[in-house]
Amino acid sequence: MSHNSFGHLFRVTTFGESHGPAIGCVVDGCPPRIPLTEADIQHDLDRRRPGQSRYTTQRQEPDQVRILSGVFTDEKTGVQMTTGTPIGLTIENVDQRSKDYGEIRNKYRPGHADYTYDVKYGIRDYRGGGRSSARETAMRVAAGAVARKVVPGLLVRGALVQMGPHRIDRSRWDWDETGRNPFFCPDAEAAAFFADYLDGIRKKGSSIGAVIEIVAEGVPPGLGAPIYGKLDADLAAALMSINAVKGVEIGAGFEAAALTGEENADEMRLGNDGKPLFLSNHAGGVVGGISTGQAVVARFAVKPTSSILQPRLSVDRFGAETDVVTKGRHDPCVGIRAVPVGEAMVACVIADHFLRHRGQVGETMPWPMD
Amino acid sequence: MSHNSFGHLFRVTTFGESHGPAIGCVVDGCPPRIPLTEADIQHDLDRRRPGQSRYTTQRQEPDQVRILSGVFTDEKTGVQMTTGTPIGLTIENVDQRSKDYGEIRNKYRPGHADYTYDVKYGIRDYRGGGRSSARETAMRVAAGAVARKVVPGLLVRGALVQMGPHRIDRSRWDWDETGRNPFFCPDAEAAAFFADYLDGIRKKGSSIGAVIEIVAEGVPPGLGAPIYGKLDADLAAALMSINAVKGVEIGAGFEAAALTGEENADEMRLGNDGKPLFLSNHAGGVVGGISTGQAVVARFAVKPTSSILQPRLSVDRFGAETDVVTKGRHDPCVGIRAVPVGEAMVACVIADHFLRHRGQVGETMPWPMD
Amino acid sequence: MSHNSFGHLFRVTTFGESHGPAIGCVVDGCPPRIPLTEADIQHDLDRRRPGQSRYTTQRQEPDQVRILSGVFTDEKTGVQMTTGTPIGLTIENVDQRSKDYGEIRNKYRPGHADYTYDVKYGIRDYRGGGRSSARETAMRVAAGAVARKVVPGLLVRGALVQMGPHRIDRSRWDWDETGRNPFFCPDAEAAAFFADYLDGIRKKGSSIGAVIEIVAEGVPPGLGAPIYGKLDADLAAALMSINAVKGVEIGAGFEAAALTGEENADEMRLGNDGKPLFLSNHAGGVVGGISTGQAVVARFAVKPTSSILQPRLSVDRFGAETDVVTKGRHDPCVGIRAVPVGEAMVACVIADHFLRHRGQVGETMPWPMD
Amino acid sequence: MSHNSFGHLFRVTTFGESHGPAIGCVVDGCPPRIPLTEADIQHDLDRRRPGQSRYTTQRQEPDQVRILSGVFTDEKTGVQMTTGTPIGLTIENVDQRSKDYGEIRNKYRPGHADYTYDVKYGIRDYRGGGRSSARETAMRVAAGAVARKVVPGLLVRGALVQMGPHRIDRSRWDWDETGRNPFFCPDAEAAAFFADYLDGIRKKGSSIGAVIEIVAEGVPPGLGAPIYGKLDADLAAALMSINAVKGVEIGAGFEAAALTGEENADEMRLGNDGKPLFLSNHAGGVVGGISTGQAVVARFAVKPTSSILQPRLSVDRFGAETDVVTKGRHDPCVGIRAVPVGEAMVACVIADHFLRHRGQVGETMPWPMD
Repeated sequence: MSHNSFGHLFRVTTFGESHGPAIGCVVDGCPPRIPLTEADIQHDLDRRRPGQSRYTTQRQEPDQVRILSGVFTDEKTGVQMTTGTPIGLTIENVDQRSKDYGEIRNKYRPGHADYTYDVKYGIRDYRGGGRSSARETAMRVAAGAVARKVVPGLLVRGALVQMGPHRIDRSRWDWDETGRNPFFCPDAEAAAFFADYLDGIRKKGSSIGAVIEIVAEGVPPGLGAPIYGKLDADLAAALMSINAVKGVEIGAGFEAAALTGEENADEMRLGNDGKPLFLSNHAGGVVGGISTGQAVVARFAVKPTSSILQPRLSVDRFGAETDVVTKGRHDPCVGIRAVPVGEAMVACVIADHFLRHRGQVGETMPWPMD
Repeated sequence: MSHNSFGHLFRVTTFGESHGPAIGCVVDGCPPRIPLTEADIQHDLDRRRPGQSRYTTQRQEPDQVRILSGVFTDEKTGVQMTTGTPIGLTIENVDQRSKDYGEIRNKYRPGHADYTYDVKYGIRDYRGGGRSSARETAMRVAAGAVARKVVPGLLVRGALVQMGPHRIDRSRWDWDETGRNPFFCPDAEAAAFFADYLDGIRKKGSSIGAVIEIVAEGVPPGLGAPIYGKLDADLAAALMSINAVKGVEIGAGFEAAALTGEENADEMRLGNDGKPLFLSNHAGGVVGGISTGQAVVARFAVKPTSSILQPRLSVDRFGAETDVVTKGRHDPCVGIRAVPVGEAMVACVIADHFLRHRGQVGETMPWPMD
Repeated sequence: MSHNSFGHLFRVTTFGESHGPAIGCVVDGCPPRIPLTEADIQHDLDRRRPGQSRYTTQRQEPDQVRILSGVFTDEKTGVQMTTGTPIGLTIENVDQRSKDYGEIRNKYRPGHADYTYDVKYGIRDYRGGGRSSARETAMRVAAGAVARKVVPGLLVRGALVQMGPHRIDRSRWDWDETGRNPFFCPDAEAAAFFADYLDGIRKKGSSIGAVIEIVAEGVPPGLGAPIYGKLDADLAAALMSINAVKGVEIGAGFEAAALTGEENADEMRLGNDGKPLFLSNHAGGVVGGISTGQAVVARFAVKPTSSILQPRLSVDRFGAETDVVTKGRHDPCVGIRAVPVGEAMVACVIADHFLRHRGQVGETMPWPMD
Repeated sequence: MSHNSFGHLFRVTTFGESHGPAIGCVVDGCPPRIPLTEADIQHDLDRRRPGQSRYTTQRQEPDQVRILSGVFTDEKTGVQMTTGTPIGLTIENVDQRSKDYGEIRNKYRPGHADYTYDVKYGIRDYRGGGRSSARETAMRVAAGAVARKVVPGLLVRGALVQMGPHRIDRSRWDWDETGRNPFFCPDAEAAAFFADYLDGIRKKGSSIGAVIEIVAEGVPPGLGAPIYGKLDADLAAALMSINAVKGVEIGAGFEAAALTGEENADEMRLGNDGKPLFLSNHAGGVVGGISTGQAVVARFAVKPTSSILQPRLSVDRFGAETDVVTKGRHDPCVGIRAVPVGEAMVACVIADHFLRHRGQVGETMPWPMD
């Protein structure tokens, strides 16, 4: 990860501000001959798109992605495929209404990157948060749509498992349910509760945090490059880089601190196929930085949206004290739309490690048992 | 972070196994003319060294570091200084007693990287965990000792804030206390409790997890390179890469999920010096991936030591089911010795970002208020 | 350099094929507050643009660059400036006439990347060379226009110094002359000769190679990061990566092989300002991989255009032998348009090293004489 | 390439000065299960070792390499193999005799990096050239010995093809001859001439340059990652990074500038195996940055040794003008010992690209003809 790029062999670079002409990204190092169309990417973008319920911002961002390069129609099959060259993607910014930015142009909104961008660079595009806007995450989702196709059999899904202090009941977990409510919540009862709860938050002009869980199934064992290229270390960076994320954990995570060695051990037996079988997954699918073949499970905490109607104390760039009230269209719980973003980041990291592993070790696992 | 290296301008590469001839590291990109002796590094290594109390492994690892390159005695001052060229460091492994590894040579110890290394590489040095041994962290501490000297005024300190389910009382926090008890615990009463608690764990042949907090003071505002080079993203990767770490959080961390926007906002006033002053630090010193000038606060969860005397179910590399009991000298709470390691990783990340920021923006902050 | 990116702190990533919808690039890590407009970039692009004389391809590529991100108008001064965030640039491809690609669709043109792309990726965009087209170099020139502004006082100029076997007379070197003839040739007499010579080549349906020299003045001493980040090593890679380049040399270059140590030594005296003064520049401004403060001088050899009207033996992708004749609009000496491309690559490498040096050492040179 | 590392998946980091305690390197990312012993590496080191004839420096450097990590004895076969973890190597410096460095301690020797290191870092280890000493190249050779084993069937050989203005006769090329004379010269008659010629140079206290050619056979087609990860661009950087190198060319190189398109085209026919066959190799085995399957041919120019007995004008670090005469044990033609170094660099680059290609595309070439 450096500047505005991440990944080694599957490498993603993004650019663009919230209210500039367009945002975009370059996906470099993608294997050739993978079927890819704009519709494939659009499908994922539409899951992240705002304005789909009253619980997300009402901004209209059609988010129509355009593939500028890196694909070509194979003549034998008539299928549009990746060519192995960089995939350039852009989304034009269409809802850049000429706002009055007087409120935030010179004021540092608490919790936003206004102050830190100014103190670092001495200049910033304040319109809609500029580069620090969550709008950038659309390009992560686009890159993730490509990444999902790189690893055969990979399935990456995300769910909101906590809103404010309220956790879901994991015994009611139903992946299908995540597609039925506006919260990506796998627990139907919790989703019903969240609807009322979040209405209350929204009406107060307040906001609330959330915890998101990403589960990646079909991850081959052996991915991850110790010591500083550990799969979980790269996942941690990828998820922490999402706007508003303040914590990341793998498997049992912070709960592991309270466990004894006996409790935390994932015991092993042999499965019917003669391959090792784990009896639990406290590890979250990663041991010693390398995937075990179990599901990779990561969780991240999203802080409450910083844009709220409650006035907060602040200062301005001229060195005066002031108050800030953020009007406009904002997500009362920005964690909701972080679900597809989290999925995308996990998919990108796994795709990168899939290629890195294949590079170092080759396609055939040198399984010692054989 | 890639393979066995991390950092961009201040770049650390480590090598070596637990029971090979030596472990080592290369610190590349260090600024020139920084005073540096073996004693500087040894001081930090001695804090991590095992065998200093009954709560850590009784292995004897004198961990004498040797500087092989990258320093020279300045003729004007007579002071040994860095030259800007790579600093090569090694520590010979002296306590490699010829053990009977029969128990673990062919068995996969649950929670250890035995299985994943074998499934990835088809071969592994099983002696003492080989490359996946926590012994490697000695080189992180050595590199961290160099990193601490790169940023003027930087002070990085760590503390154990939770052992098993027991948290310290933060109102009793005393940094001096961390040097007085064998747990790096800033709460004297908690430390006394931990002594008894851990004796119980140890006598049962069990182990327990912990949570460590690292606080970096004197971090200049403006460090961090959005979007994928965020300071907190790099901290997350650096801390997650430490052996046995399963979770990382910045500032309020996972607690932020339960907060409202009003509660979470770090309001700003002007200090007596006319500079912005934050009234709280839920952000943990990082907003939008860039340091605010407040203390950078990171926390990480360490799982219980996987090596325990309790038998666990497992399989071996020949495809048979078996039991594993790990005898020998092990830390009942490996989180304790992770404290200086966590400090070192935070120091390295901050040093790297200090140089990266200076590269892009220069030494004078382009402060917009002026 | 990796995949489609180069540079460490000043990092350029390009994408796009000759006949896709657009080509583009991302310039990441640029310092903030540097004045930058589309006109600044367009100026350099126009120097590379084809169709400006009968000696370059008659394709019409207006090459209108569009800045999508990374700039903002400073409110105090009204000047559009870089913000330190990634600069996204695109050029729409407008002259993508629907050609009959029957000739090259399935045939491997000798000297072109047709065969190697197919053998590597199993699929390629054959239209106009696809990703391997020299069209990609437009984005290098765009990035170079930004790079030129990063290093205060930097002046990078290029010249054609040999066409076919004919070298210019260096005693007639006049930089102004390079703007007056269509060959970027600094020797007016040679330029007149080249006009006739190249007409002959063109009329025969043949093509010819060239040697280009790039001179960078105003390069501060101390740039370059030994051992593998040497300034000249990075220049060599950057120039060799330009389409059709087969050789690179610094200073005396291959001539140095024939010199004795006495002849090759650049002796030093003190200048009137008390600073070291070199009496010659066989080194080309780089010693031990670090800039001396003298002009950095690099030269590169460009092979003759592979697209010629003369039939050549080849094979096709179905495994049959065939002949190839490349019709259409091609440069008889592709080396001519490589001049601004070479300048751009040198400017990018120097800008990157300027930032890297500032990162490691700071802004004040630790000059030992003081 | 950055700082003191190069390569992406097969990554080499070196450290150490000429007169420090030891030099060393870390080879990271090497595939597992490759047989490797110290003797394998020593064999290559001995070819580079000085003091083997009167034509190279008389310093005694036994250059005994020590493998500190990254290998383990496979229990099934009893063979010591790589484990996929970083291979740490060191060579102790044994001939660090306590010299009088008065002559060069404060004087800047023309052609040496004395001045540039001082101007960059403000401090340098002047003993024997410190970090800029050609002694560092021993570690390149060691890394190259590992690299040679990574690509099945790879054969990398080097030869001196020019000394001073005198070129060999290529019609007499005999690879076996390179092992029979002290110049790695493939032309026995030229070698006999060089013996007398270099004696003359040496006796005058002078020195002379050379041109080295490296030929890599068995390079699979498809290696190289356009646009900025071209195989030839990486070769150019790798070779230019060798001490004293001033020029690099691939295939026809600078001669290509004088050729027409017809002459330069490498025509293709089908071989008896139905695979493409090239009728010539002006390309040097690389087209569009990707290997063709032909031999990869690179050449580099080495300047004359800067250490000569002839006095040269210079300045010192106190700002005074002075003369420099370099006494001591030096190679009259440093190009000779650059032959195994060039081989090693080419092997490392090819190994890296072999792994990178396998990562992106997999082990089976997606050959379009099938």
